[in-house]
Amino acid sequence: MGFPCAFPRRAAAWAGLRGLRGLRNGLAAQAGPAPGPRGGRALRAASSSSSRLQRVVLTSQRYRVRRLPFSRLAGGDLAFFQGLMPGRVVTDPQELEACNVDWLRSVRGCSKLMLKPQTTAEVSEVLRYCSERNLAVNPQGGNTGLVGGSVPVFDEIILSTALMNRIISFDKVSGILVCQAGCVLEKLMEYLEEQGFVMPLDLGAKGSCHIGGNVATNAGGLRLLRYGSLRGTVLGLEVVLADGSALDCLASLRKDNTGYDLKQLFIGSEGTLGVITAVSILCPQKPKAVNLAFLGCQSFAKVLETFTTCRAMLGEILSAYEFMDEKCMELVEKHLKLSNPVTGSPFYVLIETSGSNSTHDEEKLNSFLEQAMTSGLVSDGTVATDDKKIKELWSLRERITEALTHDGCVYKYDISLPVGKLYDLVTDMRARLGPSAKNVVGYGHLGDGNLHLNITADSYSHSLLDAIEPFVYEWTARYSGSISAEHGLGFKKKQFIQYSKTQEAILLMQRFKAMLDPKGILNPYKMLPSSS
Amino acid sequence: MGFPCAFPRRAAAWAGLRGLRGLRNGLAAQAGPAPGPRGGRALRAASSSSSRLQRVVLTSQRYRVRRLPFSRLAGGDLAFFQGLMPGRVVTDPQELEACNVDWLRSVRGCSKLMLKPQTTAEVSEVLRYCSERNLAVNPQGGNTGLVGGSVPVFDEIILSTALMNRIISFDKVSGILVCQAGCVLEKLMEYLEEQGFVMPLDLGAKGSCHIGGNVATNAGGLRLLRYGSLRGTVLGLEVVLADGSALDCLASLRKDNTGYDLKQLFIGSEGTLGVITAVSILCPQKPKAVNLAFLGCQSFAKVLETFTTCRAMLGEILSAYEFMDEKCMELVEKHLKLSNPVTGSPFYVLIETSGSNSTHDEEKLNSFLEQAMTSGLVSDGTVATDDKKIKELWSLRERITEALTHDGCVYKYDISLPVGKLYDLVTDMRARLGPSAKNVVGYGHLGDGNLHLNITADSYSHSLLDAIEPFVYEWTARYSGSISAEHGLGFKKKQFIQYSKTQEAILLMQRFKAMLDPKGILNPYKMLPSSS
Repeated sequence: MGFPCAFPRRAAAWAGLRGLRGLRNGLAAQAGPAPGPRGGRALRAASSSSSRLQRVVLTSQRYRVRRLPFSRLAGGDLAFFQGLMPGRVVTDPQELEACNVDWLRSVRGCSKLMLKPQTTAEVSEVLRYCSERNLAVNPQGGNTGLVGGSVPVFDEIILSTALMNRIISFDKVSGILVCQAGCVLEKLMEYLEEQGFVMPLDLGAKGSCHIGGNVATNAGGLRLLRYGSLRGTVLGLEVVLADGSALDCLASLRKDNTGYDLKQLFIGSEGTLGVITAVSILCPQKPKAVNLAFLGCQSFAKVLETFTTCRAMLGEILSAYEFMDEKCMELVEKHLKLSNPVTGSPFYVLIETSGSNSTHDEEKLNSFLEQAMTSGLVSDGTVATDDKKIKELWSLRERITEALTHDGCVYKYDISLPVGKLYDLVTDMRARLGPSAKNVVGYGHLGDGNLHLNITADSYSHSLLDAIEPFVYEWTARYSGSISAEHGLGFKKKQFIQYSKTQEAILLMQRFKAMLDPKGILNPYKMLPSSS
Repeated sequence: MGFPCAFPRRAAAWAGLRGLRGLRNGLAAQAGPAPGPRGGRALRAASSSSSRLQRVVLTSQRYRVRRLPFSRLAGGDLAFFQGLMPGRVVTDPQELEACNVDWLRSVRGCSKLMLKPQTTAEVSEVLRYCSERNLAVNPQGGNTGLVGGSVPVFDEIILSTALMNRIISFDKVSGILVCQAGCVLEKLMEYLEEQGFVMPLDLGAKGSCHIGGNVATNAGGLRLLRYGSLRGTVLGLEVVLADGSALDCLASLRKDNTGYDLKQLFIGSEGTLGVITAVSILCPQKPKAVNLAFLGCQSFAKVLETFTTCRAMLGEILSAYEFMDEKCMELVEKHLKLSNPVTGSPFYVLIETSGSNSTHDEEKLNSFLEQAMTSGLVSDGTVATDDKKIKELWSLRERITEALTHDGCVYKYDISLPVGKLYDLVTDMRARLGPSAKNVVGYGHLGDGNLHLNITADSYSHSLLDAIEPFVYEWTARYSGSISAEHGLGFKKKQFIQYSKTQEAILLMQRFKAMLDPKGILNPYKMLPSSS
């Protein structure tokens, strides 16, 4: 398994881009052993070995980024922060290392300071001070992002939400949870489960990611098909702006039409417009019954038709519709020794139902399966109703990412497309690359129109990357897709935004950024091309 | 039945408010016969009689508003518009009258010009010209708003979306509809029904309201409990900004994390930031089975407990949970001669289920009803499964507004509160007003935490209004509620925003307004207090 060490060489193609030379995406990781699966509960522990971390090249060197003229940390600054939050000012190099490198081990900053506020007032004081001193700040939650958005590029102060982990309130009548931004998603899930509720989102990184980070990146995940995006379920936010002023939009109301919905601007802004300090979120009831079906389809057209059929027949209990091609399954079997209970199909789908009555749900699922089998949509399949088998089947889908890292150098893309076009990109890419790629695989959240396209090769190659990019982005743009469905832009994808957004839209975003953060101290070098 | 003709007298309480003196809300209408029910299909026809319209006092006189220094229409302007859209430039006084007065007949402008563009390019040309000439513009959809936001205050040019009524595309796999902003909601419903889908929102005003207006006001309505708000279901917008530039955010993707979600700022901005010209919206499958239960409860505590019970037992098929107090039912019986099939309870609830399997749904509903009856949550009730009886039961809830207009002068409030507190406001108000009010009634979308509080009196009285306001807003603010759950602020509620939003939030909204519409030509005098 090899990862590239050389600098990517192509200069950014877009005129609006400054200060970033040769920034390329598509590379999962650059050095060291492959990361473990994200489904684990100790994500942070995976990056605790300093000997491994030292092998990650500094982002500033790798991408040849120019540091913006922010102030540099001085002794007086440290004294100020130590006075503000004694015992929660981290300068220990070893402790800082884990927070300077992203989970994929693909980017690395050199921050000398991490602050761990406990209250919104402390966040306000920190930002007010940093704004006055012109010190750049990198807000950080669980550091599980995949586009290099959650770690510093240079010496930005890391502002961690790790100690802001208090549940403020939960209303069992309305299902509305209010909590601080640093609550770990899985902890919230456990808390809610005791009350008979669930979080409206679920992610592989749930054991580490913070709810504030989820909101800041508008995380998608496995439950979006059923419960919708965070733009609908997040009811309120508390945010500290770049100048330290706190914006209280922490409403716990399903309906509120009094003025512009300011909180929406911060959802998905990746820490560039403000630091989210608290979240109010609408949580659904815990489903009483869950069923899983794992099915084989003989063509992608049948995958699509199976989707429309099951949506009609399963209706309100459909909670996931995932698909993967046979290449994915081969890799999962080969590298992880998992066994696929359904074989001999070019495509597989995973259908989950969640409902309030197990008898009804099983009846609906059985009717659908009968229809799908008799009409030839589905050629083979298996069904699970008990927890253990459900988890086993889910792992076939969830561990594809892990299997890919064992297959060699991985070029990763997270694309939204009209569902009818979803797999054409994989087919076209496979034809285009021919034998120069080892494997070209496609899987993802079909119900959401979200394709994870992954290409593996024995080792990194400039010419292979040149064959993939910008082709993959141009192809996506041609069908009005999104070049980042759920991962965001962060540091690694910022220069590709113009493939999914018009120049007018990008300019307007830059005006919002300039208005809310005139000095540009919040998560600099991320998400947007520089504005001038 | 009497409506006030005198000017409300209290000066605005908030320092940030300029140019509006004595603006008060709470009054449904000021002159003429009561409007008919909003459920009808010919809403616009109700305001076609010029003799009735002439009795509505000009807003500028009634509220003593000062005209801002916009240019006045000149002959050259008319020539320009006639060249741009021949035959679609309305200057006929009779035709203009209907568009100068709101549906409630409570406010009235004196515009001399209405434009009816058919394309986004024409809207761009209009706004570019108006921006250069400093001419104020009042965007107008179906003119069904309840807070005076959809009609001019002075002589603003009315920019109607009535001729922008083209369906652009519908994808049966994804359920995504793309259409122009002027499509009437009911027309879209009819179109989708043929395809086996429904709109994610439903309103009494569906026969007249435009989807663009729905989005611009972030309309709530009857399906929000099930399908969530427009913030989740609207996937894309095309908007023309004040300077005439078109912003294309018309994505048809469920997931897209490439930059700030600009469209969110325009959802619920009531035409003050831009003119929505096209909408992309996610539409659910049409449910195969619908059931209705109309039940009596002996206390509001039991209404709440019935809600938590039915949410647990009906789960994913629950599509509406409405409540009304006995006073509402008395008025519906007295004024509309409707018959309440369930009597003798201080509270009534209407529960709707929508699902994909009628047998399953009826089983679930029956189990819930048995549980609710045996545990004493519900004292009496009736169930409907056929369309005719379902409509009859719905009309008991939907026609309360109409019944109220027959009861005298109506003071109307649309409040969001934590559900546990929802009815306390009605009780407190009733105790506070005593015999000075004729009736104090509460009803609304309990599942959404949305109370419609209405107070009737034989005639308008300043002292009664003084007893209601600002008490109702202070009460709402004390429990962190919203003083406008779904109606918006428009002209009539703009000065009360500070009861639901902090001064920091309001200032930020004003900065967004100033950035996007520096001359303030878009829907002036609406939504926000003036910024300086």
